[in-house]
Amino acid sequence: MNSRQLFLSTLKRQSVMRPPVWIMRQAGRYLPEYRELKKKYSFRKMVENPELATDVTMMPLRRFPLDAAITFSDILVIPEALGVPYQFDNERGISMERRIQSANDIKQLKTDGVVEHLSYVFETQRLLRQELGDSKALLGFAGTPWTLAAYMVEGGGSIHYETLKKMAWGAPETLEALLEILSKVLIEYLREQAHAGVDAVQLFDSAAPGCPGAFYENWSLKWVKKVIEGLKGEVPLIYFVRGMGNHLPRLADIGADVLSLDWTLELPKVACQLDGKVGVQGNFDPVLLCQPPEIVRSQTRILLDEMKGVPGYIANLGHGILPQAKIDAVETFVDTVTSSG
Amino acid sequence: MNSRQLFLSTLKRQSVMRPPVWIMRQAGRYLPEYRELKKKYSFRKMVENPELATDVTMMPLRRFPLDAAITFSDILVIPEALGVPYQFDNERGISMERRIQSANDIKQLKTDGVVEHLSYVFETQRLLRQELGDSKALLGFAGTPWTLAAYMVEGGGSIHYETLKKMAWGAPETLEALLEILSKVLIEYLREQAHAGVDAVQLFDSAAPGCPGAFYENWSLKWVKKVIEGLKGEVPLIYFVRGMGNHLPRLADIGADVLSLDWTLELPKVACQLDGKVGVQGNFDPVLLCQPPEIVRSQTRILLDEMKGVPGYIANLGHGILPQAKIDAVETFVDTVTSSG
Repeated sequence: MNSRQLFLSTLKRQSVMRPPVWIMRQAGRYLPEYRELKKKYSFRKMVENPELATDVTMMPLRRFPLDAAITFSDILVIPEALGVPYQFDNERGISMERRIQSANDIKQLKTDGVVEHLSYVFETQRLLRQELGDSKALLGFAGTPWTLAAYMVEGGGSIHYETLKKMAWGAPETLEALLEILSKVLIEYLREQAHAGVDAVQLFDSAAPGCPGAFYENWSLKWVKKVIEGLKGEVPLIYFVRGMGNHLPRLADIGADVLSLDWTLELPKVACQLDGKVGVQGNFDPVLLCQPPEIVRSQTRILLDEMKGVPGYIANLGHGILPQAKIDAVETFVDTVTSSG
Repeated sequence: MNSRQLFLSTLKRQSVMRPPVWIMRQAGRYLPEYRELKKKYSFRKMVENPELATDVTMMPLRRFPLDAAITFSDILVIPEALGVPYQFDNERGISMERRIQSANDIKQLKTDGVVEHLSYVFETQRLLRQELGDSKALLGFAGTPWTLAAYMVEGGGSIHYETLKKMAWGAPETLEALLEILSKVLIEYLREQAHAGVDAVQLFDSAAPGCPGAFYENWSLKWVKKVIEGLKGEVPLIYFVRGMGNHLPRLADIGADVLSLDWTLELPKVACQLDGKVGVQGNFDPVLLCQPPEIVRSQTRILLDEMKGVPGYIANLGHGILPQAKIDAVETFVDTVTSSG
């Protein structure tokens, strides 16, 4: 059974010899070869050029025996395709060229031709499928409607989501119109990724912890479910969320194939709570990959032992790998999982 | 029944007409009179001078009909008393004069005379008790051992707690020695606050979300329980934590009188889960107090309705008030609670 078969079987919650393993943001700044390439090209250039994006995607797979590649891209390609471009700035972080603040701003979004505009993503995925063949799984991803709306309404990254929540409480119909558009576009976008050859897609709900508990359903989950329904039978879906551990029993029923969960949770207990209704992915502390190899090895073994035999378990971190992660720690982590079967 | 009686009855989970209300960081930067005073004095000066600290503590009570005052102070007075001073810098945030990195660093902590060194805190509390009389509740507070250790080992605030976790995984006996010292000092410190006249103390576990789920018990809760046991029968205790919603059933049994919880939780459901074993405080979204009064009023009423009749409920935010909170929003929030009985 090769990596791809292992990954696909796990998505179906079949019994396998060991969990598949990949790492969120595995093609990222902790890799010297990534930092080297980044000196020559901007982030957007690397995302938008299929050859470069393919090369970056493959970087971690050339070093580590990972079971899956994840398409090098960004969740902000969707706002960009809708006419709200983003840019990175080392000091200010992510910023959008403009903010969505009114029904009129929403009307001006370029909702036609979004998928055509994003053809470079699918081209990258077709190149990747060729390069990976049948041996490794290929993943695609996108942000959830709520998380994309957060960037578009706030005009960039945010800690408190003040502007977004002002809209959510004060002009809910405006926010809903935006979430509706994003849900529809996401379904088309992720469907096209499936056609281009991805084995599964991951939806990142990074802005979910900004939802007050009573609004998580209406502001985010409801729209995630719409996307999942729209993709039913087309491609397996992993839902990533952090800081929402208290909503777990409900998350088992949103229709996702796998829940990707953060390090504050006790994953073996969570797996019991979820009662086999959905797979789980995670939840190693990203800080673990900044530690010496012997600590990485022992901590990885502990969680693997606890999760042994849990169907649908995918080994991963609880959040993206940190830029300061150490190569030998990553190596130890991946080797410990792949040699555990 | 005055504010203090209401607060004390609520701590005992007795039936009351309405929940008492106070706001975390209620004496803070959102108040123009606080910002004005801050131009004249440094933060540490305001904390360490009993007359100034009393004045700042009283500021929000002069504006709003709050049920409790919380002593103006900082969790870092404990590291300072142990010989690890702190300072604030508008750009770098909090930094400590040095880092605790080894058993030797720990040996050099000034563990004798900590309570004497902190006499200014108790003096402030005696002044406040005089000023408040029997009409309002007075609260004291401290950081948990884990949270204080985080500042001392990281040498300031931290996002990922890399250095702290390196110690926790790599040299657990060193971290335990530090947590042991902090637990003992905290018991003495909070006992002395009770003698000075506080009606309850709140333990802030701001660094708890840095704990991987499997280590939350050993790194933080175990030491919180030691502090609670050491104070049993002396003063009611509120335990504040955020981002650890999935650990709730366990939190009901740590011995705290009240759990102060964050906005990602659905408080009415949580109250059911806790089954009356412990009171709950919270959990309005701090961002709510940046909204127009009509939104504040309607959202406050919704949660109050849902929590009606839940014994041991204290209305508060799910985290500290934001510097950009609006005075009319705070006013509306407090008025809505106090007029609900």
